[in-house]
Amino acid sequence: MRLMLAQTAPQWGDVPANLVTLEALCRQASAAGADLLALPELALSGYNIFARLEEFAEPVGGPIARRLGELAADYGLFLLVGLAQRQADGRMTNAALLIDDHGERLATYHKRQLWDREHAVFAAGDACCVEDTRLGRLGLMICYDNEFPEMARALARGGAEVILSPTANMVPNAERQVLQIRARALDNQCFVACINRAGTEAELHYCGNSLVAGPDGEVLGQLGAGAGSLVVDLDRGRLGESRANQDYLKDLRPTPEITP
Amino acid sequence: MRLMLAQTAPQWGDVPANLVTLEALCRQASAAGADLLALPELALSGYNIFARLEEFAEPVGGPIARRLGELAADYGLFLLVGLAQRQADGRMTNAALLIDDHGERLATYHKRQLWDREHAVFAAGDACCVEDTRLGRLGLMICYDNEFPEMARALARGGAEVILSPTANMVPNAERQVLQIRARALDNQCFVACINRAGTEAELHYCGNSLVAGPDGEVLGQLGAGAGSLVVDLDRGRLGESRANQDYLKDLRPTPEITP
Repeated sequence: MRLMLAQTAPQWGDVPANLVTLEALCRQASAAGADLLALPELALSGYNIFARLEEFAEPVGGPIARRLGELAADYGLFLLVGLAQRQADGRMTNAALLIDDHGERLATYHKRQLWDREHAVFAAGDACCVEDTRLGRLGLMICYDNEFPEMARALARGGAEVILSPTANMVPNAERQVLQIRARALDNQCFVACINRAGTEAELHYCGNSLVAGPDGEVLGQLGAGAGSLVVDLDRGRLGESRANQDYLKDLRPTPEITP
Repeated sequence: MRLMLAQTAPQWGDVPANLVTLEALCRQASAAGADLLALPELALSGYNIFARLEEFAEPVGGPIARRLGELAADYGLFLLVGLAQRQADGRMTNAALLIDDHGERLATYHKRQLWDREHAVFAAGDACCVEDTRLGRLGLMICYDNEFPEMARALARGGAEVILSPTANMVPNAERQVLQIRARALDNQCFVACINRAGTEAELHYCGNSLVAGPDGEVLGQLGAGAGSLVVDLDRGRLGESRANQDYLKDLRPTPEITP
C-alpha cells in the first residue's frame, strides 16, 4: 500500500477552512498514487479545543463524517482522520475515523489512554481496533496510546500489519516519539505510522516528526517540525522477511506478575 | 549507584583464564569506585559452548560461584555474571548470578526467553527476578528477554529501578539492541543496562554496543564493537523526575485481547 501522512497545522476552530485544506491534500494524495491519506489527532477542529468541545464534537455520522465520505469517494482514497465524537449517550470521545475509498465508514477507534486534561472532557474508549481492508489489516491507536507497548502489542496480536496513529504530540517529545514508534514496529515486526501535528495553539507547541517505521524498526520516512507531507510504500512482504529468522509473536511466553 | 559494565571477549572454554581477567576487572571497578560490576551472558565459559555444556555447566553453589563470592568480598563489589547452571534435577539453565559485596548470593535468574539453539540444551526459567539491595531494586533479564517489552514491564511493575541484562548479541543486531534497550528504559521510566559481549566464537560475531539507558530513554553511556568497559552513575532521583509529568505505570490501563 502507498501511504500519505499529512502533518498539518489546522486552523484553530475553523472546520470549514480545514476541510478545504483536506480537499487539497486529497488531490495531492491522489496525484501521488496514495491508497490512504492519514491526518493527525483532532485534525479538523484543532487539538486544543477542550473548552469548546460541546461545539466541536461531531455526532456519529455527522456532517464532518459525511464530507469525509464524499472526499474519499471522489478521490478514490482511504481516509483516516482524528476528530472529537459525541456518542448517543452524550459522552465525548477522542476518536479516529477510517473511511474506505467508496466513502464507507470502516471503523471508529476511541482513544483508550487519555492524556492529562483530556480526562476532564473525554470518555476513554475500551475496545482495541483492527480492521481488515484490501490494503491489509490496519490497527488504530491515538497519541498517548503510543507510549504504552501493550497497545501496539494488542493490535499486532490481533493481526495488525500496519498500525496508524493520529497524534498531537508536543515539544520536547520529538525524540521520545521517534524512539517509541520505532520500538513498537520492531517489537511487533509490523509497520507503525505516527501522524503528528505541526504548529502552535496557545501554550501548546506541536513537535511534528511524523514518521513511518518498518518491521525491523527502520525509519521509512520522517518529517521535521513544520507542516508537510510524506508518501511511503509499505511492502507487506517485509513482514514475512522480518519474521523469518525470529518471530516475536510466536516466541513470546506469558510473563508472570511480580508482587512489588 | 555507580555501575561498571565489562564488555568482555572471554577465552573460549577457559574458565580459569576468564576468572583471572575477572579479577583484573574487579581491581579496575574498585579503583573506579564502582558499586556493581556486571559481565555478559555465559561470561566465564564463552557463549558458544552448547556442545560442551555438560562440562561447563556449574552446579548450584559450585566452584565458580564460590570464586565470585571471594572476589566480591575481597573487592567490596556487587557482581553480576552470566553462567550456565546445572539444577538439582539435572536440567541446565542459562543463568545470571547476583552476589553482594560481602560475597553472599542475592539472586539467580534463569533466562525465560530462550533463543534459537538454546532451546535444545537449556530449560527456560519461569520466574521473573527483582531483588531489593542497598543499591536499589534490581531487576534481571538475559539477552533475548530484552526483545520482549513484556519482560521489562513485568520487572518494572515489580518495582525494579535498574534492570540489568547480560547478553551475547550478534552482528547485525547492534542498532536493534540499542533501540530496544532505550525503549525498555523509556517505557518503564527506569534504568536499563545491557552488558553485551565482544569478539568472535566460530560462526558467531558479537556486536558489542553495551549501553545504559536512563528513564527518558536517554543513552547514559555506550561502547563500540570491541572489548571495553563503561562506568556510569545512576541517580535514582531521576526516576521521580521522569515520573513527575506522566507516570506510565500509574496511567497504564489493561489492554483487551483482540481475536485475530
